[in-house]
Order: sequence, then C-alpha cells, then structure tokens
Amino acid sequence: MSKASGASALWGGRFDRRPSPLMERLNASIDFDKRLWRHDLAGSRAHARMLAAAGILTADECAAILAGLDTIAGEIESGTFAFDPALEDVHLNIEQRLTDLVGEPGRRLHTARSRNDQVATDFKLFVRDAIDRADALLRPLQAILIDRAETEAATVMPGFTHLQAAQPVTLGHHLLAYVEMFGRDRERFADARRRLNECPLGAAALAGTGFAIDRHHTAAALGFERPTANSLDSVSDRDFALDYLSAAAIAAVHLSRLAEELVLWSTPQFGFVTIDEAYATGSSIMPQKRNPDAAELLRGKTGRVLGDLQALLVALKGLPLAYSKDMQEDKEPVFDAVDTLELGLEAAHGMIATARFDRPAMARAAGVGFTTATDLADWLVRVLGLPFRTAHGVAGRAVKEAEHRGCGLEELPLEVLQGLEPGVTQEVFEVLGVERSVASRTSLGGTAPARVREAAAAARARFLEAG
Amino acid sequence: MSKASGASALWGGRFDRRPSPLMERLNASIDFDKRLWRHDLAGSRAHARMLAAAGILTADECAAILAGLDTIAGEIESGTFAFDPALEDVHLNIEQRLTDLVGEPGRRLHTARSRNDQVATDFKLFVRDAIDRADALLRPLQAILIDRAETEAATVMPGFTHLQAAQPVTLGHHLLAYVEMFGRDRERFADARRRLNECPLGAAALAGTGFAIDRHHTAAALGFERPTANSLDSVSDRDFALDYLSAAAIAAVHLSRLAEELVLWSTPQFGFVTIDEAYATGSSIMPQKRNPDAAELLRGKTGRVLGDLQALLVALKGLPLAYSKDMQEDKEPVFDAVDTLELGLEAAHGMIATARFDRPAMARAAGVGFTTATDLADWLVRVLGLPFRTAHGVAGRAVKEAEHRGCGLEELPLEVLQGLEPGVTQEVFEVLGVERSVASRTSLGGTAPARVREAAAAARARFLEAG
Amino acid sequence: MSKASGASALWGGRFDRRPSPLMERLNASIDFDKRLWRHDLAGSRAHARMLAAAGILTADECAAILAGLDTIAGEIESGTFAFDPALEDVHLNIEQRLTDLVGEPGRRLHTARSRNDQVATDFKLFVRDAIDRADALLRPLQAILIDRAETEAATVMPGFTHLQAAQPVTLGHHLLAYVEMFGRDRERFADARRRLNECPLGAAALAGTGFAIDRHHTAAALGFERPTANSLDSVSDRDFALDYLSAAAIAAVHLSRLAEELVLWSTPQFGFVTIDEAYATGSSIMPQKRNPDAAELLRGKTGRVLGDLQALLVALKGLPLAYSKDMQEDKEPVFDAVDTLELGLEAAHGMIATARFDRPAMARAAGVGFTTATDLADWLVRVLGLPFRTAHGVAGRAVKEAEHRGCGLEELPLEVLQGLEPGVTQEVFEVLGVERSVASRTSLGGTAPARVREAAAAARARFLEAG
Amino acid sequence: MSKASGASALWGGRFDRRPSPLMERLNASIDFDKRLWRHDLAGSRAHARMLAAAGILTADECAAILAGLDTIAGEIESGTFAFDPALEDVHLNIEQRLTDLVGEPGRRLHTARSRNDQVATDFKLFVRDAIDRADALLRPLQAILIDRAETEAATVMPGFTHLQAAQPVTLGHHLLAYVEMFGRDRERFADARRRLNECPLGAAALAGTGFAIDRHHTAAALGFERPTANSLDSVSDRDFALDYLSAAAIAAVHLSRLAEELVLWSTPQFGFVTIDEAYATGSSIMPQKRNPDAAELLRGKTGRVLGDLQALLVALKGLPLAYSKDMQEDKEPVFDAVDTLELGLEAAHGMIATARFDRPAMARAAGVGFTTATDLADWLVRVLGLPFRTAHGVAGRAVKEAEHRGCGLEELPLEVLQGLEPGVTQEVFEVLGVERSVASRTSLGGTAPARVREAAAAARARFLEAG
Repeated sequence: MSKASGASALWGGRFDRRPSPLMERLNASIDFDKRLWRHDLAGSRAHARMLAAAGILTADECAAILAGLDTIAGEIESGTFAFDPALEDVHLNIEQRLTDLVGEPGRRLHTARSRNDQVATDFKLFVRDAIDRADALLRPLQAILIDRAETEAATVMPGFTHLQAAQPVTLGHHLLAYVEMFGRDRERFADARRRLNECPLGAAALAGTGFAIDRHHTAAALGFERPTANSLDSVSDRDFALDYLSAAAIAAVHLSRLAEELVLWSTPQFGFVTIDEAYATGSSIMPQKRNPDAAELLRGKTGRVLGDLQALLVALKGLPLAYSKDMQEDKEPVFDAVDTLELGLEAAHGMIATARFDRPAMARAAGVGFTTATDLADWLVRVLGLPFRTAHGVAGRAVKEAEHRGCGLEELPLEVLQGLEPGVTQEVFEVLGVERSVASRTSLGGTAPARVREAAAAARARFLEAG
Repeated sequence: MSKASGASALWGGRFDRRPSPLMERLNASIDFDKRLWRHDLAGSRAHARMLAAAGILTADECAAILAGLDTIAGEIESGTFAFDPALEDVHLNIEQRLTDLVGEPGRRLHTARSRNDQVATDFKLFVRDAIDRADALLRPLQAILIDRAETEAATVMPGFTHLQAAQPVTLGHHLLAYVEMFGRDRERFADARRRLNECPLGAAALAGTGFAIDRHHTAAALGFERPTANSLDSVSDRDFALDYLSAAAIAAVHLSRLAEELVLWSTPQFGFVTIDEAYATGSSIMPQKRNPDAAELLRGKTGRVLGDLQALLVALKGLPLAYSKDMQEDKEPVFDAVDTLELGLEAAHGMIATARFDRPAMARAAGVGFTTATDLADWLVRVLGLPFRTAHGVAGRAVKEAEHRGCGLEELPLEVLQGLEPGVTQEVFEVLGVERSVASRTSLGGTAPARVREAAAAARARFLEAG
Repeated sequence: MSKASGASALWGGRFDRRPSPLMERLNASIDFDKRLWRHDLAGSRAHARMLAAAGILTADECAAILAGLDTIAGEIESGTFAFDPALEDVHLNIEQRLTDLVGEPGRRLHTARSRNDQVATDFKLFVRDAIDRADALLRPLQAILIDRAETEAATVMPGFTHLQAAQPVTLGHHLLAYVEMFGRDRERFADARRRLNECPLGAAALAGTGFAIDRHHTAAALGFERPTANSLDSVSDRDFALDYLSAAAIAAVHLSRLAEELVLWSTPQFGFVTIDEAYATGSSIMPQKRNPDAAELLRGKTGRVLGDLQALLVALKGLPLAYSKDMQEDKEPVFDAVDTLELGLEAAHGMIATARFDRPAMARAAGVGFTTATDLADWLVRVLGLPFRTAHGVAGRAVKEAEHRGCGLEELPLEVLQGLEPGVTQEVFEVLGVERSVASRTSLGGTAPARVREAAAAARARFLEAG
Repeated sequence: MSKASGASALWGGRFDRRPSPLMERLNASIDFDKRLWRHDLAGSRAHARMLAAAGILTADECAAILAGLDTIAGEIESGTFAFDPALEDVHLNIEQRLTDLVGEPGRRLHTARSRNDQVATDFKLFVRDAIDRADALLRPLQAILIDRAETEAATVMPGFTHLQAAQPVTLGHHLLAYVEMFGRDRERFADARRRLNECPLGAAALAGTGFAIDRHHTAAALGFERPTANSLDSVSDRDFALDYLSAAAIAAVHLSRLAEELVLWSTPQFGFVTIDEAYATGSSIMPQKRNPDAAELLRGKTGRVLGDLQALLVALKGLPLAYSKDMQEDKEPVFDAVDTLELGLEAAHGMIATARFDRPAMARAAGVGFTTATDLADWLVRVLGLPFRTAHGVAGRAVKEAEHRGCGLEELPLEVLQGLEPGVTQEVFEVLGVERSVASRTSLGGTAPARVREAAAAARARFLEAG
C-alpha cells in the first residue's frame, strides 16, 4: 500500500475504488487543518508515552515514534514537509510520514485511538492556545487604556447618550469604560478555558477502548485538568469552539463600539482625536483624505466574527451523536475568528497608543448642548428641596429659553431663571460650568477626576497586577 | 401636568409638541417591558431605602414610597393596574402611578437615578432570575437522564458516527453524553451569573451623580456582589444579556441534537423509541400518524434562539457610548429566548421521562453493519501483535467478504478469516458479538456497562448532589 | 366528539390519551397564527367552491359552508369568536366552529385537503399581502425623498467617504441615493411576489389526492398564476418566506444607513438636521435632551430582522421532506419582520417629511477638510495636461501645506501652489470653491444641481408614475 | 516615487509617514482581491477606450495602456506577476505595474475614476460571473434529477411527514420536488443578475466627475444594461453581493435537505440508497465504515453560507454614505459562499448521478406504518358518502386495531372494519395496497406514476430546453 494511494490506504480496506477528485476536494481539510500540526504532534507524543507506560508499546517502539515525530516537527518548521491532499488531513499526513520514517512502530501509534478523539484533542489544544493569546492581547490593551485614562483623568468632554451631548464627562472616565468591557472579555475567555480543559484522548471512535490505557496520564501530559467523562460526548462535543466564538463575538462588538467612536471623533465635525498616520490611509482620487481605515476595518470585521459564530452553531444544529462529518466545519470559523480578533486587538492597541486627543476641542464641545441642565435640576433639588420631577421640568424650561435666546444655560439672566423658579439665586451659576459639573460627580464609578484616578488605580490592580 | 399627557410629562419640559402616534407606537416598550415590573419595584425599593439612609429622603418620604410601591405590586398582581402606552415603559408607568398614589415623595424617588441605570438594573435582575430558572430546569433534566441511564446501563444499541453504525454502545452511555452537555450548560449559566452580578444602580444617566449616595447599600440590598466600577459602562453594557443568549443558544443546539435523535429513533425504520402520546400529535388527513411534534419543535426552535442572539449582537454592533435607544432592542430577544429555552427544557424532560425504549430493536440493530470490525482489528493487535494499521486493513477486507456473502462478521467461516490473516484462531469469534464488544470497552468514560454505572453515580454526585 | 376534547378530536382516532398540557403549550400556534384568519377563510371558500364545481360537494353543502364561513368572519371581526388553544391552530378552530354552525357539510370541507397544503396556501396569501404592503410603503418613502431632493438640489454639503469630508455634494443628490436603494427593495419584493405566486392547495398531505379536484380553479380564485407543480414540494417549501425575509433584511440595512445619518447629522457637532419633535424624545434625568429615538430604533431594529431571517434559515436547514413540525417556526419570524419593516418604513417617511435641514451649516461644513483637492488635481490634468497620478501628488502636497498653515486650499498664495507645480495660474482658484466644484460634476448620475434635478424627474417617472 | 514605497505612493501626498506594518496587514486586501484581476483588467480596458473616445486620452496613450494591460494579463496568467502587499489591493498593483510598463499613459488611466467606482465595477463583474456559474451548475443538477425521476417514476417508497411514514409516494415524485427547489434557485439568481446589471463606473469617488466621460460607453462595453443612476449610491451599494448571498443561502438550505435525506436513506435502518464509494470515506479505526461524507459536508457547509450572508449584512448595518472601509469586508464572504456553493452543487450532482436506489427496500418500507389509512378514509368518503372528518375517525380506529393486532391495515378482517363502520365492503381492500394508493393520486402535481412522467417531461421543457 503505497503513499500514492492516499488516505484511503489508511481506511480503505473494504473499498473497491478511490474517492472522486471532487470528493477529495470537498473532503480534504489539509489546507486548513495543517495549522494544528504542533498540537497533533503534542497529542501523539503524549499518546505514545502513555501506550508505552501501559505496556501497549515497547520502550523501543515509543522511542522510535518520538524520534520520528521530532523529525516531522523539524520538517514542518523548515518547510520541507510535503503535505499531501490525498492524505486528507494533518493527522493522516503525519501518521503516514511517521510510518515512512520509522516503519512498523508508526503503524502501532493509532492503537486505542481514533481520528475522532485525536482531532477533538488537537483542536482543544489549539483553542486553549488561542484563549491564552486573546488574554495576552487584551491585557496590554487594557494597560494602554488605563495609562491614557490617567493622563486624561481631568480632560473634560461631552458625555453622549443617543449621540446627543448629555452631561460633561472626563475622557479618562470614558476610556475606563472600555477597560471594564475588555475585563469582562478576559473573564469570559478564562471561563471558556476552564470549561474546555478536559482531555478527550482515549475516547477512541466513540465507545472507548478495550486496551488498558491510562487517560489520566495523557490528560496530565497535555495540561488538561482531567479526562472527559463520557466517550460519546468527547467526540461529539464542540462546545469549546462555540465558547471561544461567543467570547470573540462579544469582544468584537466591544471593539466595534470603540472603532465607531474613533471614526466619529476623527471627523472634522467632532475633531476630538487624530488617528495616527500609521493607522490611516489616503485616497486614490482625493488627495486631501486621511481615512481612519484601521478603525473602520475593526468595525466592519465584527460581521465576520458574528458570521463565524453563526456558522458553527448552524453546522451543529440537529446533529445526531456521535461524530458527523459536518463537524469538520468547526475549524475554519474558529481560525478566522482567531485571526480577526487578534489583528483587531493589536490594531486597537496601536490606535489608542498613538491617538492624539484634542483637549481644547473636547472642552469646547462639552459645553455645547446645555449639558449642565441636570446639574441645574440637581441644584434645585439639593438647595431648594424641590422634588426631582418638578426640578426636571424647571430645568427643561430653562433649556428651552436658552435655546430660544441662542445662549448657554450659564448665560441666562438670573431673572429669567427666577421667572421659572422664584427661589433660584446667583449661587446657581456655580454648577452650570462643565468643569464644576464634572468635579461634582463623585459617586462611586462617577466621572469626577478624583474618582477616575482612583478607578484607574483600581483597574491597574485588578486587571494588570493580579494573576 | 396631568397623567393624560403621558411620558412627555416626565421629560417634556423643553418640548413644544407631543410625539406622533407613530412614534409612540415605535417607542413604547410597555407591551413587553412590563414583564420587568417585579424587578423595577425591587430596584425602586432598594433605591428609596438607600436615599433615606443617605438622608436624601426623609424617613416619612421613604415610608410613603414603599407603601405606594406595595400598593402598585398588589394592583399589578391582581390585574387592576392600568398600563398606559403613552407612558412609554414600565418605569414611567410605575413612577407616575406612585406619584398619583403618594404625591410629592413620588416625585422625589428619581433623585440620583436615571432610567438608564434603572433599566440596566431591572434587566440584570430579570436575567439573573432567568439564569436561576435555567439551572433549575437543567438539573432535573440531568436527573432523569441519569435515572434512565442507570436502568439502561446494559442495553446494547448501535453507536453511530456519520449516522452509520460504528460500534455497539449502551443506551445508558449514550444518555450520559447529554448529561455532560447539560452540565456544561449549567456551568456556562453559572459563569454568566457571576459575571453579571455587579449593580449598575447609581450610575445615573452616564456620569454618576453628585448626590451622596451609597452604591454598596443598593448593591447589597439587591443581591449583587458589588457596584459596577464605571458609570458609563454601567449604562452601555448589555454583555449580561449576550452571555445569557450565548448560553441559551448553545443549550438550544444541545436540545436540537437530542430532538433529532428522538425523531430518528421513533421512525419505523429505527424503531428504538416510542414517544409518549402526551408529546405526539396526529394528522388532520392521515389517520394513522403519530408525529413526534414535541421533538420537532424543540429542534425547530433552535433557529429562533440563534436568531435572538444574532439580533442583539447586531443591535449593539458599532454603538457609541453611552446609552443609545437601539439598546431598547435588548429585551424582546432575551424574553423570547428565555421562554423558548424554558419550554424546551421542560419538553425534553417530559419526553425523556416518558419515552419507551425498545431494547430488542436496539439489540438487533447493534449487530447490523459489522459493528464489531474494530473489535476484530483490536484482537489482531492484542493477540497476534499486528500493528494497528495492518490489523485495520485485515478487518476491512473481512467486512468486504462478509458484505459480499451477505452475512455477519461472526458468521464468516474461520478459513475465510485465516485466508486474510493466517494467525486467526477460533477464539476470535468471542469478540465478534455485540455484548462482548460492549463489555470490553472499559476505558475511563467508555461504554462498558460497569463503566456506565460508575459514570452515572459520578454524574449524580457531581451534578445533583453538589451545591 | 365534543369541542371540549380539542384538536385531538380532529386527528385523535388512534390515540388513547390527550397531549400533556406542556405539549399543548409547545404545540399550539393559535396565539400567533390566528393572524391568518382572513387568508384561511379565503382558502376555504375557494376550496369549497371548487369541490362543488367538481361535484364532490353538493350545491347545498357548498352554500351552507360559505354561509358558515361568512358567519365566522363576522364573529372574528367583531371579536366574539372564541379561539381555543386546545384546537391548536387557526385552521382547526375555524373548521370546528364551522361544523358547530353548519353540521355535516362542515365535516366534508376537509375532503381532498390537508392542513399541510392549507397552511402553505394561507401563509402564501399572507406573505403576498405583506409584499404588497411593503411596496405601498416604500413608494411614498421614495416620493418624499424625491420631493425633498428637488428642493435641495442645489444645497451644498460635504460628501463623505470614511466619514471624512471627501468632496462637496448636494443634499438632493445624497437623498436620491436612498431612492435608488428603496427602488431596488421594491424590485426585490416584486421578484419575491412573482416567484411565490403558485398555489399549493390540492397538494393534500404531500402526495396529491385521488379526488377529481381542479387545482386551476382554486389557483385562479385565489389570484395565483398557476398551481404548484409538485405536491411534495408544495408542502415542504418555505422559500417564499425566506424571500420575504431576505428582502426585508436588505431593506432594513438600507433603513439603518439612513437612520445612522439622521443620528449623526442631528448631533450638535454636525448640526445638519433637526429631527422633528414628533420623532424625538426627552430624558427622565437630563432636561435638555432631544434624542433622535425614532432613528435609533430604526437602526437598532435591523438586528431583529436579521435575526428573523437567520431563525427561519436555521429552522429549515437539514429538514427532510415533506412537512416537519419544525416548519411551524416559519410564521413568527415573518410576522415580526413584517411589523418591524412596516413600522420602520412609516417612521422613515415621517422623519424625512418633517426633518429641517440647516443649509448654512451644511454649506460651511462643505468647505472644511480640503474637499476641493480633487478639483485641484483634475484642473492640473485638464488644464496643464499632467497625468492624474502626478496631479494627485501635487494636490496632496498642497493639502499638507494648507493644513500646516491652518488655512483652506483656496487661501493658499499662488506662489505656494506654483512652488509645487510651476504651471499653476490664478485661474486655478475658480475650481477651489465648493459651489463651483459641485456644479462641475456633470457626469451622468453626478452631483451637479442640474443633474440632480434631471435625476429626480427621472426617478419620479421610473418609480412613481409607472405601474 | 519607487514601487518600493508601496500604495502610499499612490495616495500619500499629504502623509508624512508610512502605515504601520500592522496596518498593512489589516488593510491589505491583495491576498483575496487578486481574484478580481480579470475583472479589473476588463474594467480598465473599457475605461481606457472610453477616455480615448471622449478625447481625454490620445489614441496612442490608449493603445499603450491596452498593450500594457495585455502584458499584465499574460504575467498574471503565467504566474510571473509579483503581487505586492504594500500596494494594498489588486487595483493598485495593476496600476503600478502598468505605469512601470508603459510610463506616463499609465499615470493617466485613473483620470475620472476612483478606486470606489473601480472596485464596485470589478466586484459586480465577478458576482455576475458567479451567478452565471451557479446557473450553469444548477441546470445539470436539475437534469440528473429529472433523468432519475423518470426512471423511478413508478418506484414506490414511503412519503414522510414528521419523518413518520405518511403515504406511499414514488421516488420519481420525491426527486422532482428538488427540481422545483433548484428551479426557484435559478430564478432567484436570474433576478439578482438583472438587478445587478447597472454599471457604477464613472461615479468616481462619490460625486461623479467633471471630465466629459461617456458612461453609456463603458456600461455597454462591460455588458451592463445601463449606467447606475446615482453616483453616491454607486459606490455605497453592495446589494448585489447581498442578493447573491441570499440566493446562495437559500440554495444551501435546499442542498442541506437533500443531503439530510441521503444521510438518512443510506443508514442500514433505512437502506434506501447506497452512496457511491466515490463520495464516501472510511474510518481510521473502524474498518467496516462507509460514511456518506460528501452528503454530511454538504449539510454542514450550510452553516458557512448562512454565516457569510450574516457577515455582510452586519458589516453594512448602520454605515453612513458613501464608501466606508468596512465595505472591504464584502469580498471574502462572497468568495467563500461562491466556492462553497459551487463545490456543493457539483457534489450533489455527483452523488445523485451515482446513487444506487434499493427499490425492494423502498417498497417494503412503503407499506410499514399504515400508510394507506388516508386511502381508507377517502374510500369511506367516496363510496359510502361519509363526511371526511367522520371517515378520518373511523380510519384512525382501524389503525389502532391493526396496531394492537400487529398486522397491516390490509390484513384486518372485514368484520373488524365493519365493526367500525357497517357499510364497509370487501371492495375496500383494493385501496389498501401501496401500489394502488400511489396510482390513485392523480391530481395535478400528485404522485401517481403517470403524473410523475408528465411532470418530468414538463420540467425538462421548462428548465432544460428553455433559454
């Protein structure tokens, strides 16, 4: 049975004919699953050592296999390994090469193992690495946001709701909101990691095996907390991929919100930020353009991560146990989401690290749109004892008057305010400035510069210094 | 300002005109968010008590408010509360009624609070309850599966991969695979609960407040672990809803797999199970039909949960901070997913509890399709010392021979087997029976009845007795 | 067999027991499918008349049935019809009531018909009506956009790419872009209508019938172009619902883009438009707010329409022929998308009809951001004969110089421009004004006011006067 | 400005610095959009010829450009063209190479054109080709289904609803259901093609151009029916891609249903079909397996097409006009859907063409499950004049009796039937055989062999001979 006869050499005993070329094209996953080669080698090493420990392989056979796997690792790393589509996938490519290299021991490696548990194990190892990388990219993104938040703890800008100026806030406070989001993302990935961390190896095709294997041995060798509890579930389960994709989708939504703000803020109309040229591009026709392309791509790529999540959920819907070939559609969406998320996190970091904020422009904007009307209402409650709803109505009418006059709230004559509520005194003007407004919001988690500095320090301790 | 003037009475100070009737239709959420009434009252009670403790309300004002809220609770429970669409949402309906009932103190309740933090709090409380209910439904579903798994620990059936008979397994083993899935679902919901459990109340509109509120007080009163750390994030965040929807989507996929199997197994062709009449329906034209409708609906409803998840992810994509009205689209997908999941979990429980398994049919099917070919290969490895790949080839050719003769593997003459591999002895026939095959798969998590009984006991301890 | 025994009275001949209450809850579709009552009555009338024409019913039986159906129509319209969940769906509710009203002829109506073809017919009639309504709402939306485009044909504003000012355009031109989008939407719905318009009635359960029915008769009576060609496909097909949902999803994306622009343009920073108070709301805490809620909801509701499309695609994925109960999940996503789209189209119409555009603000913004740099490059090509790429480079350096000096392109000294390209003459300044720039873009479909007026007239003829 | 300086050479006049390497990675689309090279060359040829016809290029310049483009075509085809990621995309790569080859005329090609209209044109040309290929693959799939339907016009099998045997049908009838589905798919693609077929070239960046171009000239040269009507819409519109993706998603759902049936029917339990070895694979561990992998992949890949559709809908949601970089996310989902659909259609064709149907197994199954109960009810209506509902009840009780006795309906003693309905005569047994049942369903579109032969002929005329 020569290598030329391809994968069917490995399973084709009962077959008369070869798959059609179309089938090979449809079926072959080697183009994408070769990305799992490190994990496949790791799994095979652990399996071989366990078989040896269990007396199923001799020490010599095990040594030959391990040496062969090392050779293969070298070949793949150096680019000399010839992946053969006729051998379907990374697993059969490696196994076939191993047999070519070491002979009969190579043919013994697949004892008490099936591709079903092998691929589940490899893919789990890959996803676990991806989770670790996501964490390793989210952390510095939080770090740069905290750094910049501290520097901008007292930078006043308009806080928006409905994209209308609502109340003055500080830029530092705004940036820390993203630190919270990315903190939840990290926790979500950590939960996914913990839930994933059971080893399917040894489930074999679906039923377990009669060989006296030691599943705790392989689980420990591969860094899993324990073996999976049910062999059918072990080969049917792709929850770990869904967990990754869910977490990635939510993180992508967070990135899309940040990106939207960078796009908005860098318009001439807002003018709050200048995206560094390193993250912008020009136009082939309009010489003046500096487009926030990186931010737009960050936002646009949300679609593909959501699509990836949907793709796998749909593929798994209604599949009977145990393994069905539909499940081969698990890897590409995950690979795509991994690449997209990682690139997006790096780009977000780069943009935030290099963004130039225009403090005067932000400060000017903070006062536009009667953003201290709530402060007026609160003053009426606090000082005059009006019920909030009544105070809200008075402040609303003050806004209408100021709008009518084309002035700011702080520019209304006292008499006008007294016409709306007789108790108003000169003192009210103290709360109508944006700096004062911001400074007053001292509730826990509020926007007052002092609170922002505390929050930045707390975030640093919670997210960057722990663990 | 009369009640008749609607919600704009509560925010319309600067407005000249009323919203268009179309706008009221578009904007009003009262039709669905009245479902939050219990949570809104709970939030208002906690807020009022905290305001009183902080000296912002007097004790009398607080008492009046609490009494008014109790009255409202009674009215809603008894169905006498008149929800008014012109008052937009459940929050303004309740606040307006409170003011009608208790006068000025009612107008003071909204001090240091905004609808933005109020709705975030209410909705978190709702989702937290929904998580608790999901757990409370998943647990008995696991329990019935474990019960039945124990009873069927030695019931032999075909294990399928690619929906082709693969190896004999036990029904108990198969059922326990679902116990694992639902166990991960419970863990996923538990993670979501932990991540959700920070209180947004006190974030006010987005910036925090200048009133000297005590956010730890309200957080504790409402059963949250701590207040949220950033007020902008507090009102912009809907991660908790996405976490619920992700977990529900994955659970729905699990249910769809179970449902698919019930549909398949109850065909005359499979005949493994009879769905109880309580979960089946007939046909308006075909008198003989007994359709597994409950299972089909379980499978079909996966689509809507996936659609719900998608809907909220899309709604949040690209939203700038802090609150945008788009976020009002958060509730209906969650409500729909909650109702769908809960109904589905109950239906799954009912179907499993009442399903009648046909053991003889399963046993017959277990032997069809040369399901012990792997046992033959393993015997060649274990007894004759052949490398697995070589043994696999021999077994494949034996299958081809049996298929050609139209007999089972165990019915092949010894000479035929010896023609394929001279070392084969009579002893080989011992491993070709399905009972023996099943009994041999004793690896951890494997399908041997003894293992299944152990696994059922372990699952009982892990999932039902803990916590 | 009394009414009290519910739906199972109509199909339960072989059943011993009633469905579980849970099953009734899971199975009952009456809560939503009663919306199909008009279509169900129409289908039954056509079926009864055809049965009579074919001699399967007597004239008297047919007359009794038609009278009974009229009575039922009256009862439902007046709200006196008691829908009974135990009778599952609108079809069985009506059939049972008919039998109560007219006796035996009512029991003859279901001859040569099944719920499978009945529901397919009813639902197609509903979707066909929804398509007609979508068209009837898209048309006036186009009309108001064309009206306003004509009025604003010469209103200069910045054209954006990447949300950066790109080139000056006219507001009329911008509004006409949406007329094109909604024109494609109308065409898409029209295509869906044409494809839908085959009558499934007479397919019976799945196999056709042995009764000598005349399917052309019912098809014509119900306004279908022809009967469907294959009875299995007739009851399995929900393409028409997917076609509606696809068209609705694309239309929703169009609306979301319009909504995004209204949100942006109504910020103080842009200030291009004021949304009428009829489509805005205020804040419960911030008295000055006027939020573009209708636009935000339009944008946010895109998610649910995308989710509806996904829900049905997922429900249908992998369903074997012919009818499966999963397909009962077809109606709610369609109903939700219909309601959402119709409300959205009305809201878009209302907002556009009442929006107040701020021409001076737009004109000012049109000149910000060196938006005539392309005009400069084009002048260098046209007048000096430079290759475009060379001219683009010169104009880019002019922008850099102007940015450095903090002035507009038109404010650069001639010598500076000559320093970049010696051939530049005073004449160049003529093309650097935004009015001149806009007027020059006279290519077909371009933004020059004359072109916009022509385009508006053409759109009126194409979209409003035809058909 | 050397080639080494990359894309920014083409737009970087105002920039001081190069993009970051990360940005190049994020921004570069050359890895995937080089697939558009043929369409880009076609667009450039048409543009150059039009510019020459309009006197904007000289004849010599045009000739040089065309010669250069031919050279580039040759280079790309022969694999010697060096795509440079620093040049971002296929458009700039080709333009830069053209300038290298022909000098100044190359720098003039981009006159009156922007990448925005260029990419819209190229991508429309690509999608138009993809639509044509989809049609060219759907047609032979219909052809083979019609061929096999004719051969199997009288092959009796069980017709299923709810996957329960419902009524006997013919295999030919079942196969023709798919002919209808794929016929609608072809029509859907044809509609998309018609709607797509307007040429955006000449819209320039967004505003049109002042050069005296002739858009009808380029539109005609590229096979479009007319130029687009609005330049802003021209560069903002991706409806054509959404139309393709919607049609592909629905077609994928059809394929998933066919695939599900092939998977089911090839189980030992059903045994209706044997998938040819060319479309099946074996197992690495279980020597006897022959898995219907091609069918499973067809079903599983539905997820990715649905994900692709979702990805682009999400990317476009809420994008302001005109072009945003998010829209660069349009190509990969379309490319993926194109490849997936085309492979799937080929695989479906191959599987159907080579499938071996087991007529005896189907015939046996057709009689299982009391599938002629409807025939019994219909006989009671037709011969005894019972109302259908009454007849349905009698037949239901007959089924219960037969089930109780463990016999078929046709095996019930006459007395038993007479006990249920006294009028029953011996003649009833004639309608209880499956052959007779099938032959009786002669309504238009019904399953009677004669009808199926007519329907196959009609389908051949409608779908294969037209056009």
